[in-house]
Amino acid sequence: MTQEHVSPPIYWIADYLTPSDILYHAVHKVIVHKRTPYQEMWIVDCGTYGKGLIIDGIWQSSTGDDFIYHETLVQPAFVNHGGPRAALVLGGGEGATIREALKWRTVEKVVMVDLDAEVVAACREHLPEMHQGAFDDPKVKLVIKDAVDYLDETVGEWDVIISDLTDPIEHGPAYKLFTKEYFEKARKALRPGGYFLLQAGPVSPPSMGMHVRLVSTLKAVFANAHSYHVHVPCLGHPWGFILASDMPINTRPDPEAVNKLLAEKTNGKFKMFDGITLLGLMQSPKHVRDAIAAERHVYTLDAPPVFSTQELPK
Amino acid sequence: MTQEHVSPPIYWIADYLTPSDILYHAVHKVIVHKRTPYQEMWIVDCGTYGKGLIIDGIWQSSTGDDFIYHETLVQPAFVNHGGPRAALVLGGGEGATIREALKWRTVEKVVMVDLDAEVVAACREHLPEMHQGAFDDPKVKLVIKDAVDYLDETVGEWDVIISDLTDPIEHGPAYKLFTKEYFEKARKALRPGGYFLLQAGPVSPPSMGMHVRLVSTLKAVFANAHSYHVHVPCLGHPWGFILASDMPINTRPDPEAVNKLLAEKTNGKFKMFDGITLLGLMQSPKHVRDAIAAERHVYTLDAPPVFSTQELPK
Amino acid sequence: MTQEHVSPPIYWIADYLTPSDILYHAVHKVIVHKRTPYQEMWIVDCGTYGKGLIIDGIWQSSTGDDFIYHETLVQPAFVNHGGPRAALVLGGGEGATIREALKWRTVEKVVMVDLDAEVVAACREHLPEMHQGAFDDPKVKLVIKDAVDYLDETVGEWDVIISDLTDPIEHGPAYKLFTKEYFEKARKALRPGGYFLLQAGPVSPPSMGMHVRLVSTLKAVFANAHSYHVHVPCLGHPWGFILASDMPINTRPDPEAVNKLLAEKTNGKFKMFDGITLLGLMQSPKHVRDAIAAERHVYTLDAPPVFSTQELPK
Amino acid sequence: MTQEHVSPPIYWIADYLTPSDILYHAVHKVIVHKRTPYQEMWIVDCGTYGKGLIIDGIWQSSTGDDFIYHETLVQPAFVNHGGPRAALVLGGGEGATIREALKWRTVEKVVMVDLDAEVVAACREHLPEMHQGAFDDPKVKLVIKDAVDYLDETVGEWDVIISDLTDPIEHGPAYKLFTKEYFEKARKALRPGGYFLLQAGPVSPPSMGMHVRLVSTLKAVFANAHSYHVHVPCLGHPWGFILASDMPINTRPDPEAVNKLLAEKTNGKFKMFDGITLLGLMQSPKHVRDAIAAERHVYTLDAPPVFSTQELPK
Repeated sequence: MTQEHVSPPIYWIADYLTPSDILYHAVHKVIVHKRTPYQEMWIVDCGTYGKGLIIDGIWQSSTGDDFIYHETLVQPAFVNHGGPRAALVLGGGEGATIREALKWRTVEKVVMVDLDAEVVAACREHLPEMHQGAFDDPKVKLVIKDAVDYLDETVGEWDVIISDLTDPIEHGPAYKLFTKEYFEKARKALRPGGYFLLQAGPVSPPSMGMHVRLVSTLKAVFANAHSYHVHVPCLGHPWGFILASDMPINTRPDPEAVNKLLAEKTNGKFKMFDGITLLGLMQSPKHVRDAIAAERHVYTLDAPPVFSTQELPK
Repeated sequence: MTQEHVSPPIYWIADYLTPSDILYHAVHKVIVHKRTPYQEMWIVDCGTYGKGLIIDGIWQSSTGDDFIYHETLVQPAFVNHGGPRAALVLGGGEGATIREALKWRTVEKVVMVDLDAEVVAACREHLPEMHQGAFDDPKVKLVIKDAVDYLDETVGEWDVIISDLTDPIEHGPAYKLFTKEYFEKARKALRPGGYFLLQAGPVSPPSMGMHVRLVSTLKAVFANAHSYHVHVPCLGHPWGFILASDMPINTRPDPEAVNKLLAEKTNGKFKMFDGITLLGLMQSPKHVRDAIAAERHVYTLDAPPVFSTQELPK
Repeated sequence: MTQEHVSPPIYWIADYLTPSDILYHAVHKVIVHKRTPYQEMWIVDCGTYGKGLIIDGIWQSSTGDDFIYHETLVQPAFVNHGGPRAALVLGGGEGATIREALKWRTVEKVVMVDLDAEVVAACREHLPEMHQGAFDDPKVKLVIKDAVDYLDETVGEWDVIISDLTDPIEHGPAYKLFTKEYFEKARKALRPGGYFLLQAGPVSPPSMGMHVRLVSTLKAVFANAHSYHVHVPCLGHPWGFILASDMPINTRPDPEAVNKLLAEKTNGKFKMFDGITLLGLMQSPKHVRDAIAAERHVYTLDAPPVFSTQELPK
Repeated sequence: MTQEHVSPPIYWIADYLTPSDILYHAVHKVIVHKRTPYQEMWIVDCGTYGKGLIIDGIWQSSTGDDFIYHETLVQPAFVNHGGPRAALVLGGGEGATIREALKWRTVEKVVMVDLDAEVVAACREHLPEMHQGAFDDPKVKLVIKDAVDYLDETVGEWDVIISDLTDPIEHGPAYKLFTKEYFEKARKALRPGGYFLLQAGPVSPPSMGMHVRLVSTLKAVFANAHSYHVHVPCLGHPWGFILASDMPINTRPDPEAVNKLLAEKTNGKFKMFDGITLLGLMQSPKHVRDAIAAERHVYTLDAPPVFSTQELPK
């Protein structure tokens, strides 16, 4: 910690976990602040968690715990596939999602589609701890485009699609991308045997309503959809993901077999992920499974989710 | 929400998750505040999470998510034993720990030992949502005593011992109870085949140092010690537990077999716990296992842990 | 500062100065918390300002700066009178208001009327820095009674009446005591040549609306009413007072003459008050005088003020 | 209030009034954020107080109450002079200080010297409520230069010099400009009969130490130095100023005479200032005068003040 950190921090970013529980993150230094055509972004020195990326007031990730978020986001889909060659990443501006894809030696091409060139450029410049040079890998192609538009042009091309978009806040760029129509486009873009993965909001009483409804929405599109989550410290909540496919999802993977697969097909550079971790991730606790089983709601373009950072508890 | 909650809250309790990340809990109403001979306690209306219990400035539990904490605290030890008849609870003032023990029909006696009669009385009066009448169960005996003194008088008597003490803050009543010497007393108090369970602090980078050292301390006493954790929303962290025994600990339980056991031997009233939940809990992610494997420190009475609510990150 | 103050404070009390500007006071230690039949009170160790008294969530005073509040509250009325013998204090639970009255050697009797015996008892026990033994002075009589009821029974008896009540919050005990009807009772209770002083809320853009309307209400009752204010650090705002009388109010006092009067008739123990201070207090800045001149509203029992700690700015 | 203000604010700026009393200002919108070669600046929508200017983490002024700060900063010096023709403003980036100077019809030239062209340009673009076009007045000349360097080149030229610099924070651009050596340069730059005015930090127990020592420093340079202060709501403190001159300072001005002077020589556009306001400003309360009388410290270049936003209380 530098001298600067000794004084009490002056700037704070509030995350309203509930109306009565507020998590304040200190900003020790503003590294980047910009208002792009699409959103407002910050990269900040946030102290304990290193550098943090904030978009439209919502904490996205930090260098200190991004391994938890991004390994959990990417690796379960890749393991379920077993040997993906083509991966499509929608969003994921930090470059850490494509970094995770590149850990697989089977991968031949990774396309990353992001709406906001300025966010990507700022992450590329200021968050090398996250992308670790992934943008420079010859297998990677960066496309600046709306994810929906890109999906309209790609059919049967991808082994894995990772939808790592910002949350569907009102007036934000992403709220239409959490709907049945969008998921159908993603399904068509997959190769036979492909897997779709959605970052899908907090999974914690009292704020797991949107996540649960996204599971039922994905179940209306894919033969199988499986929810899992992990606590990401800088987000203050356990964060949810949904793996969907017309192929089976192995919810009881054998840890030793997974480790063998990772040893054969990846570079093995995982901090948090391995066979035991995957087995644990696939087991959601009963109250989450019960909530998912009871939900029938399907989000559509006519009635998309509206994520609020101050969502009232159910 | 009542009218009272519409105005912004006036009282707040700060939980310094890290020096740069502070979780503020609103206090909508003070239900009880008292300074006992041992500690300062509050029971408050905290809004979203219902009622909260705070001791010496540290959030203990809330009625809204206590099922997560207490089912996770108690049930894995009971399932590993398979049919406990005698259970000893050290601490656990809210009465929710003994409530969980009483879910097992095999249980014939539960002794709860707590130092602070005033805290127990206040919880009994004001937190019926937590104890659910457990204090009135004829199988339960409440003993107001120091946990160490009680352990000195009991040998080979318990199938399961649950140590649900307040964190070892400096000058607090519990800091000596997180040491090798204390754990040895607990081991002697167990029947052959018995299991010891310790509530064991946060498990989250950057604040899992104490937990990891408690695992190595328990490994110095018991043949086996297994760490697991769960995110407890009102605590702001994933919370850690350590199950220890000279008997094997089943880290790969079969969910269906667990469910069968629960159906046979319990009243089945679980919100969060079942076989799948247990399988998931037993799988810690790689970075936690790696930290545990690398740790050799043993806490002793001469050098007990000092938990700080403002612990600097490692 | 004690060792206890080195850790960041855990308890905080929020004062919503405006909807966008919140002043958080640390509570280093709760000295007293009680819910009386009338209100909720706290006496706390608040750090820099010493001990603070909080009633119904609103900061009343602190030992560190009470000299500013109470000398400003009491002395201008006494100087304008010139030699008061009988003083009535309505409210003023801390005992600091009667302490100020007793500084005048001309004073023969001081009656303090407070609704809430428990608040007075707690202040008497825990805030000796404020009352400085005033409750034990043989000239002082404490009456536990509603201020309105007391005024109904006293006619033409007082040289100075100080109304030092808690703010008129909704459902609080005092909101009826900021009305024309109440002020008329106070006027009748004065001796000829008497002065009435009202503690009268914040005087700061954007929250001086209530103060300004209290001036116009007092002008509807007394021949003269003069507003003044002083910044009280622990309150976060400049605080307003209104001096009212059928006698003239000297708004351009000669400092040397005031000092001579104080030397002759008081014990001289003032930290903040003297002739120059009084001359300064009597000069309100133009924008406050303009707001007062433009106001015609009169608060009545049918339409009393409702002070809100979260009053929206005008 | 716009729709945007309905959600709880996400960004907050903390002002540590004391170690135990923290004033949080909401940032509803970042209008400008930039790091210049000299300092970090923000212009923000801060809600109740309109737009705020923050430099190096310290709140400078807001559009909602800048009339209080800037009329109090400038007008007492101008009235004491009686008919200034040449005014020098050091600092004052918002342009509100020169706006105040231009209210005097006697003024023929105003030079504003500011170190930081980027700050001035941003204020000129985004804070028209403050400068009100003053930068475009033909009498005004803007010089981008270090204030000390400018003073070295000007002798006997100014009727009034206003030093409206940022606080002397460590490593900040201004800390050397609060010393005896600097004040001596300012004195030489004055015409005979000229007045020097210094913005001079908070004047409130417990944080008036620097102000008091600045008074004694100015008394070591000028024949007369007089302290006064006013509560500026957005700053959370009463703010102090020191008027210094070899000419007498009228501390007991006649309000009617002042009003007559203002009517003759100014455009009369004052919200807060007039004769009564000036009479009030000139009367500091006793405890401030006592602290000033007891102080002998003189700040020099070798031992300049170091203003800290977290200054420990005396």
